[in-house]
Amino acid sequence: MELPFFYAPALGQSASLEMEEDTARHITQVLRMQVGERVGVTDGKGNFSECTITTAAKRKCILMPGSVVQHPPPVKTITLAIALLKNKSRMEWFFEKATELGVQRFVPLITHRTERQVFRTDRMEGILISAMLQSQQYRLPELSEPVPFSNFIQEPLPRYALIAHCEPDEQKIPLTHYQQEQEVTVLIGPEGDFTPAEITQAIQAGYRPVSLGSTRLRTETAGIAAAACLCI
Amino acid sequence: MELPFFYAPALGQSASLEMEEDTARHITQVLRMQVGERVGVTDGKGNFSECTITTAAKRKCILMPGSVVQHPPPVKTITLAIALLKNKSRMEWFFEKATELGVQRFVPLITHRTERQVFRTDRMEGILISAMLQSQQYRLPELSEPVPFSNFIQEPLPRYALIAHCEPDEQKIPLTHYQQEQEVTVLIGPEGDFTPAEITQAIQAGYRPVSLGSTRLRTETAGIAAAACLCI
Repeated sequence: MELPFFYAPALGQSASLEMEEDTARHITQVLRMQVGERVGVTDGKGNFSECTITTAAKRKCILMPGSVVQHPPPVKTITLAIALLKNKSRMEWFFEKATELGVQRFVPLITHRTERQVFRTDRMEGILISAMLQSQQYRLPELSEPVPFSNFIQEPLPRYALIAHCEPDEQKIPLTHYQQEQEVTVLIGPEGDFTPAEITQAIQAGYRPVSLGSTRLRTETAGIAAAACLCI
Repeated sequence: MELPFFYAPALGQSASLEMEEDTARHITQVLRMQVGERVGVTDGKGNFSECTITTAAKRKCILMPGSVVQHPPPVKTITLAIALLKNKSRMEWFFEKATELGVQRFVPLITHRTERQVFRTDRMEGILISAMLQSQQYRLPELSEPVPFSNFIQEPLPRYALIAHCEPDEQKIPLTHYQQEQEVTVLIGPEGDFTPAEITQAIQAGYRPVSLGSTRLRTETAGIAAAACLCI
């Protein structure tokens, strides 16, 4: 796609689309685009339109959308439920790459070994939007507020509910085994892994143990490896 | 492994192993370890030993190695030949995660669309060492100096020589197809992809085109996805 590409959740609601201020500034000040020029816009819900700039001011940019193309929903629904990371840049890196790879849903988990911290959902949403645009996708992944592990595993299970952990376990199947499956959730543990009690709890709730290879991975690396395995 | 774990290429050469200064400082100042305590040491060539501290000073640490355990070489030889990234922190992330995942060899490529820059091989070696230790592995990946694309593709081919690119091509096979293979090299292109001429050149040299899924990936994301696909 050659056109500069932006996000506007209000796409399709009116014949006049006012862009959010930071985006407006980027279009008019950084890219120096002018009235009459065109940009691509997605609403993050599968819809895309080529839009024409009708107002281009310092902090204001208004577009006239063209026809809205609706892209079909993805075949797969991949959910990564991943322990909150204390290191914010590693967490952001994970969200960026997992979004590029095409994960549909993220659930930050509070596990026994998770260190307490503030999770800036709004900031992480910004990371997801940038990554969606960067990788030219039209659907924004869902991002939950952090949820305690024991609550999340009681939620209704997808077709394939998996827990990736490092404890020795002959029952573990390589995650690659599930590559072709369409509805998968994988639980990824904190540095130091899930506790044996958490693993038992998850298995009792219906989660199957999986392996992500033979090396010891950081949490965010495990998350990206799972995303790559299930999405590419 | 419970013991703090360090790198010393000279392991096995003598009954008295002097640690490099930064490592010495970490052992004695940060971890505050003392004479008589033990650490794990690898030489990055598959060898590991539990060593006892015999000297612990501010900038000096000497160990007495125990028996040296030789770990067998990996079954797989995965090489990622990846276009140099202008953004150093993205390049470093890539090397860190790809090492954790178990890639054996890295070749930074200078492609047509690569932006000119300095590649700090010594700094990147440091990243590889930390990642090797973090993931409790005993083999340091090889890291070449940057090499021009057209030179690299003329080198002898491994069993499976693959080029990942974004051009539409019915010949492309998903990289997942090669997951079980033991000797694989994958070429990963720059932002903006390999040029059509480069792709043709590689195919003529014997490289087969592969796909890394249907979304457009940043270079470092493509590299990690390839590593996850082939190593886990």
